[in-house]
Amino acid sequence: MLFAGSKAAAHWPLPCGAACKNATVWPCNGKTPTCFSFGESKLHSQATTADVWPGAAMFDWTTCSTCSMRTAAASFSRGAWCALALPLNGTNNRNMEHMRSLITAFPEQLKQAWVTARTTPIDFNGWTPSNVLILGMGGSGISGAIASKMLSDASPVPIIANNDYTIPAWTGDSTLVVACSYSGNTEETLAALDAAVKAGAQVVAITSGGQLGALCDLHGWLAVRIPGGEPPRSQFGFAFTSVMHVLHEAGMVPEDLYSAFGSAADHLRANQANCIERAEALADLVEGKQVLLYSDTAQEGLAIRWRQQLNENAKLLCSHHVFPEMNHNELVAWETGDEGYVVLMIQMPEDHKRTRIRMEVCMEIFQEQGADVVVVEGDGEDSVLRFFDLVHVGDWLSLLLAERAGVDPVDIEKIDHLKTALAQIP
Amino acid sequence: MLFAGSKAAAHWPLPCGAACKNATVWPCNGKTPTCFSFGESKLHSQATTADVWPGAAMFDWTTCSTCSMRTAAASFSRGAWCALALPLNGTNNRNMEHMRSLITAFPEQLKQAWVTARTTPIDFNGWTPSNVLILGMGGSGISGAIASKMLSDASPVPIIANNDYTIPAWTGDSTLVVACSYSGNTEETLAALDAAVKAGAQVVAITSGGQLGALCDLHGWLAVRIPGGEPPRSQFGFAFTSVMHVLHEAGMVPEDLYSAFGSAADHLRANQANCIERAEALADLVEGKQVLLYSDTAQEGLAIRWRQQLNENAKLLCSHHVFPEMNHNELVAWETGDEGYVVLMIQMPEDHKRTRIRMEVCMEIFQEQGADVVVVEGDGEDSVLRFFDLVHVGDWLSLLLAERAGVDPVDIEKIDHLKTALAQIP
Repeated sequence: MLFAGSKAAAHWPLPCGAACKNATVWPCNGKTPTCFSFGESKLHSQATTADVWPGAAMFDWTTCSTCSMRTAAASFSRGAWCALALPLNGTNNRNMEHMRSLITAFPEQLKQAWVTARTTPIDFNGWTPSNVLILGMGGSGISGAIASKMLSDASPVPIIANNDYTIPAWTGDSTLVVACSYSGNTEETLAALDAAVKAGAQVVAITSGGQLGALCDLHGWLAVRIPGGEPPRSQFGFAFTSVMHVLHEAGMVPEDLYSAFGSAADHLRANQANCIERAEALADLVEGKQVLLYSDTAQEGLAIRWRQQLNENAKLLCSHHVFPEMNHNELVAWETGDEGYVVLMIQMPEDHKRTRIRMEVCMEIFQEQGADVVVVEGDGEDSVLRFFDLVHVGDWLSLLLAERAGVDPVDIEKIDHLKTALAQIP
Repeated sequence: MLFAGSKAAAHWPLPCGAACKNATVWPCNGKTPTCFSFGESKLHSQATTADVWPGAAMFDWTTCSTCSMRTAAASFSRGAWCALALPLNGTNNRNMEHMRSLITAFPEQLKQAWVTARTTPIDFNGWTPSNVLILGMGGSGISGAIASKMLSDASPVPIIANNDYTIPAWTGDSTLVVACSYSGNTEETLAALDAAVKAGAQVVAITSGGQLGALCDLHGWLAVRIPGGEPPRSQFGFAFTSVMHVLHEAGMVPEDLYSAFGSAADHLRANQANCIERAEALADLVEGKQVLLYSDTAQEGLAIRWRQQLNENAKLLCSHHVFPEMNHNELVAWETGDEGYVVLMIQMPEDHKRTRIRMEVCMEIFQEQGADVVVVEGDGEDSVLRFFDLVHVGDWLSLLLAERAGVDPVDIEKIDHLKTALAQIP
């Protein structure tokens, strides 16, 4: 059943803010509605009482006059009425299941990504760059941001994530440029790559094809080819493993850190149920609140990944900041923080010990202001396993929040609208 | 009078959310309350009708039972009652005037900063670094973030802002480390500097003294000494001009860009009234809304400066993001954006032309969701003048919002509390 695990289904607000009439906690009168189990074989509007709510004396669909959401109402012998908002239509029901299957398959994706990396030779013939620029946007750009932070205490040269049309003036023939575009057609990344090539940089591409794939074929650039056709954010396992593979071959990644990527799939497969459980507990706490994500500076990439997944899957506007920097500005603004906020405090054993003390003191301050504060800790034996563990928890959280809000986790209508507008202006 | 320019003083909500009883728009019945003009010579609770509201038939103070805020109420001959929340006590009245005087003196500060820079030799004896790390936190760290972005299309080597206890592993004897700490006692900056010195980096300090000043004396490090004793964020003119001076002497800053710093003071002095006017118009639009700051990637440092000033002066929690990156994630979340938000869209003529199209399309999307959208443009003949123009507008906006909300723009009680807690743990 689609919404098993959602503890207060009858209390979902309608998008327009109107309350479900006569709503009580589901299951109502001990009866469990089965309306979600008929899937797409029958449209909601064609469902009968027997399909939807066995044992109900009366059953009917109504439509909210403000937001047009379908509401199922049923009465039982004891005279109580139940109402249930049904945010799913055929399309986002299908998309919900698709995104769920992609997230469920994340451990398997990591396994395939590791095989792909190990079987894709990236040979620099002894050349070592003096700096690295990782080009990419959104779901293809986050890997660069994370790699830059994760390798800060290890890489012998600066690694800089670049999320724009333009590149820094220092890009030159001693620069390794890693161009990440899942579709291969991201206009910012292609423009930045063009500039980097003109500056004489060494190029490696990570893509499923598109124009970037064609450029690789044309110029014989080194490349990691990954399977295409899915939302880029869902293919983070391929993208990030590929970036780390390229950086490893360039001498930027310590062996123990790199080899941990080979264990990530098994670790997550064994811990997936636990990840989902933690995500559900988080969803209970986050639902309906304004989310603020905080982490140590070293984990900023992870905080950004959570922010992006909450943005794209759950359609939530939220904010992030890092410790200790936020102690010097945003902390002061907590005078006006209140119970409308929930703080997700990402913590890892690697956090600086003084930063950890700062977090403890600040969590008390946030709570004094009325905010909910939740510590989010990675589970795993090493930093890479803990990292992927939290990526997975964040992915599940974004899916669960999408389900509860009744939004489509795949749909990116506003980006599509923007791209259409951009395409009309050469 | 303290609150001249505040157009709806009678409508300030009390901090507890209760409304002022019988409030009407000030001035009430054509009479102007003078309650703010007696300053600190007399406590509010000792004020008489004659002090506070000339011509009022009756006058009294009441105290909100929920939040203890003092409220002045007066009746006039026509029988109308007025009520006015008085959020100021003696302390933040004094602090409000102090921060106002610091912001008013910003053009003069820029002039002094330029003189200081031009008379402080920073001689690298022909040495050129292969990368630059700018250490600093909060009001002392923002200069590094801005310099890094502003010089992206000019600097021959990577310039990286570092806001943490730790430094990247690539820091070495070819690294120029610019250590910025206004007080000279910022523990993160001192820890990072210690690590940088051990790594063999070349050090230049920017400070008013403290431990960092003493270290400069001890080791004979190059340094730009700036006047101390004020809130670091208010001394941005000194800090940023000094950072750019050091980078210029290291060969990272084009001459025309550097020389524009010499014109900034005169430009701002001539345009200050205009800056205040624009800030007041912005304050009208921003008051009571959730603020989202957006800019082109190249202007992210400026967006962060605004965010920090709204945090620290106006005690506002707010968020920022950059174009085009936000088009790939946060834009999707605008499905849930609404009239509670106001977008401040920072625009400069230097914005990438495709990014500018993205901004135009997205502003329509934000408005369709019900949000207010305000374009914020820098005024000035070159990029440096426009930059300082917007810094100044942002500073004024933060002060005006502090005034309207009745909060103390100098007070950083939560940081003080944190520092006290940290000091107890060695």
